[in-house]
Amino acid sequence: MAQAIELPRNETGIETALGILKQQFGERFHTGQAMRDQHGHTTTWIRTQAPDAVVFAQSTQDVADVVKVCAAHKVPVIAFGTGTSLEGHVNAPAGGISVDLSLMDQVVQVNASDLDCRVQPGVTREALNTHLRDQGLFFPIDPGANASLGGMTATRASGTNAVRYGTMKDNVLAVEVVMADGSIIRTAQRARKSSAGYDLTRLMVGSEGTLGIITEITLKLQGIPEAISSARCSFPSVDAACETVMSVIQYGLPVARIELLDAMVVKAVNAYAKLSLPETPMLLLEFHGSDAGVVEQAEAFSALAEDNGGSDYQATTTMEERNKLWQARHDAYWAMLALRPGCKAVATDVCVPISRLADAVGAANTKAAELGLIAPIVGHAGDGNFHASLLLDMENADEVARAEEFVSWLNDLAISMDGTCTGEHGIGQGKRLYLTKELGAAVPFMAMIKRALDPDNIMNPGKILPA
Amino acid sequence: MAQAIELPRNETGIETALGILKQQFGERFHTGQAMRDQHGHTTTWIRTQAPDAVVFAQSTQDVADVVKVCAAHKVPVIAFGTGTSLEGHVNAPAGGISVDLSLMDQVVQVNASDLDCRVQPGVTREALNTHLRDQGLFFPIDPGANASLGGMTATRASGTNAVRYGTMKDNVLAVEVVMADGSIIRTAQRARKSSAGYDLTRLMVGSEGTLGIITEITLKLQGIPEAISSARCSFPSVDAACETVMSVIQYGLPVARIELLDAMVVKAVNAYAKLSLPETPMLLLEFHGSDAGVVEQAEAFSALAEDNGGSDYQATTTMEERNKLWQARHDAYWAMLALRPGCKAVATDVCVPISRLADAVGAANTKAAELGLIAPIVGHAGDGNFHASLLLDMENADEVARAEEFVSWLNDLAISMDGTCTGEHGIGQGKRLYLTKELGAAVPFMAMIKRALDPDNIMNPGKILPA
Repeated sequence: MAQAIELPRNETGIETALGILKQQFGERFHTGQAMRDQHGHTTTWIRTQAPDAVVFAQSTQDVADVVKVCAAHKVPVIAFGTGTSLEGHVNAPAGGISVDLSLMDQVVQVNASDLDCRVQPGVTREALNTHLRDQGLFFPIDPGANASLGGMTATRASGTNAVRYGTMKDNVLAVEVVMADGSIIRTAQRARKSSAGYDLTRLMVGSEGTLGIITEITLKLQGIPEAISSARCSFPSVDAACETVMSVIQYGLPVARIELLDAMVVKAVNAYAKLSLPETPMLLLEFHGSDAGVVEQAEAFSALAEDNGGSDYQATTTMEERNKLWQARHDAYWAMLALRPGCKAVATDVCVPISRLADAVGAANTKAAELGLIAPIVGHAGDGNFHASLLLDMENADEVARAEEFVSWLNDLAISMDGTCTGEHGIGQGKRLYLTKELGAAVPFMAMIKRALDPDNIMNPGKILPA
Repeated sequence: MAQAIELPRNETGIETALGILKQQFGERFHTGQAMRDQHGHTTTWIRTQAPDAVVFAQSTQDVADVVKVCAAHKVPVIAFGTGTSLEGHVNAPAGGISVDLSLMDQVVQVNASDLDCRVQPGVTREALNTHLRDQGLFFPIDPGANASLGGMTATRASGTNAVRYGTMKDNVLAVEVVMADGSIIRTAQRARKSSAGYDLTRLMVGSEGTLGIITEITLKLQGIPEAISSARCSFPSVDAACETVMSVIQYGLPVARIELLDAMVVKAVNAYAKLSLPETPMLLLEFHGSDAGVVEQAEAFSALAEDNGGSDYQATTTMEERNKLWQARHDAYWAMLALRPGCKAVATDVCVPISRLADAVGAANTKAAELGLIAPIVGHAGDGNFHASLLLDMENADEVARAEEFVSWLNDLAISMDGTCTGEHGIGQGKRLYLTKELGAAVPFMAMIKRALDPDNIMNPGKILPA
């Protein structure tokens, strides 16, 4: 793949650091090839670049100890959560040490009265929600994968219900971070808002391990809603579905989720799950609120959908029926893969102003067809964020080249529409060039911050910033 | 006042810069004493420190031109909006140039379909809302004063409805900034969310002009709600009122505003506006939603209030009646000043986790009485943010010293409760020492960022960071 980059290795430093860390961490220090490969591999088409060793940290002090050794010997240090990131975030292009945070999996504190909690970075979102359920609370951000909260924070993740609850940037109150010199800072206290100095919390959210390693996160929580209802509606075209989404947003309907499936995805789901949905673009919705409120919301949506030619409208409030209604969305990933057995699915992640969503999705459908690519589209429509999943035969170099052309074309299109090359997956290795296309003159100032906080470039080198 | 600091002046540089800028800006360049004093004075008890000259900018390029001259000659440059900040943000402790942005007052673009707009920094929030009204849109952040949106962005302002709509950090999509070298950057595109690189937007929000001058802001907008209702309720104690607030937040009631007035404020309002409200702590609320939704919300609130001994509950939906209900809040500032004619009101701004709000307000009432100070309290209770307004005879040095003791004690108390010394006013000159008490080890990393982006310390020197 073109995107994997190589950086010079500091062999002497790495060797020295490996010796020290082996002594310090004993059985929690690993250099086996399989372990290393696993830690340099994520859900991406960028090839694996393994670190030289993996250390399993059990505490913030462990992380600080690793970083101090790496700082002293100018060795790369790369944080690892669950390995579900999508742009080669955990690759080790200059080698170095992977710090696995999965053992740091404790929910440290839940403050039910304040609707917040403190968690270690290895807690996954499902584990947190299981922990919270008895208290009637939940953490809303849902990127699909059962990712770790540290990783979700580091990539500024979001997902299907960001339209209502925001992204990680909106739901992190504070982080504890081990900085590049091994010192430990806390970016904010636990108040709901603050004007105290530079917003280091938001600087760390989305910094992808390049400015420090997040070792604890203070999160906002939500009360589990009194009622949840779901709805589904088919549309004659992507345009009609997107017009409906715009009406929903302008009307101020507080939808919790509003997902777009294009016709190819619906077809794939019909085949995969033996359903008989109309094979046209579809919106799937979820409403959170009071018993009366969710009914009111669903009715308001139904009227807006009808204005735009929506049909086959269904809504329900019971959990079993809700799961059935949403089955098309839950099955979408596997159904898409089944369109082409043995393929690899490579996801794009552009996000545009919602007034441009129909144009962007329509153009992406056309372009994929022109290039002879299979690229079904699922979108977090309320945010203008959508994923075209390229179903690729990775052994076919010509097809991969056409896929790269598509990705490049789509990122450029989104940027030309005042959008972004990444709504929620992050830059990683894969999108560094697009960051410059997107933000141009701002990028050198990001690089200045990086150099100020990590002068030896040991924190996850080769990510975010162009070389 | 102890808080005003002096910094060394670069006399040669200043003289040179004044000569160049006078040539460049002609009638928009001012050195008259009154103009300079006005630009070094804000609503604060910190004494005025006037800049050496004031330049009225009409464009981003004007701002860049001023900054380039100041950069070349190492002269301070201080952004000025409406002068309503509260912690000496526009003081010129090392002299330099004040850049007045009030002529940059254009709403550049409104994208109704995307619920966003682009504004110049001199647009005030009232001007923006007047501009938007015909399109059924509004910008929710309301800090009380008719501040400029540039200033609100720079101080991470919020106000009465942050409990529902968040603070400036949540409502700014992107900023255009003139950096310390005079270059112009845009921190993000117009997509609703992005994971593209470091969050420079949030780094600039709340940076108080110390990292760059904000010359354009892309803001999220809201649709004007279908219905608004207001309510008022009295409580036997601050504890009972705060317990109710906690229930409201835990219950997930989407209140748009929930304001606490302590007994002294209610007394002051009764005297000032000839009302006969029960002279006990009071909550004032506003609900936004559908016609049915606001009624449901008000009813749910009423039940929660009753559980906590609330009485004298009133609610209404008509605008005239709503204004009457909220009169106590609208008149609070003037009513407090009237408690002690000729006094100066100095506002504190702590914010604590809401589970600690009752303790903090109660302790503040007791401490003020012990110190012989008059300090009525108004709070944005849903956020845990409250302002004790010290009514001071500034000629009485002993009283001012006691007030300083109170401020110091209160900031320490909030920090000890995992809260912040500033919920929404910012650090400015006044709270620099508390920033270190609050965030300790994180502050040197803020200073590294400052040095990286502004190596000659020309952008609003003497603010936020300890000397």
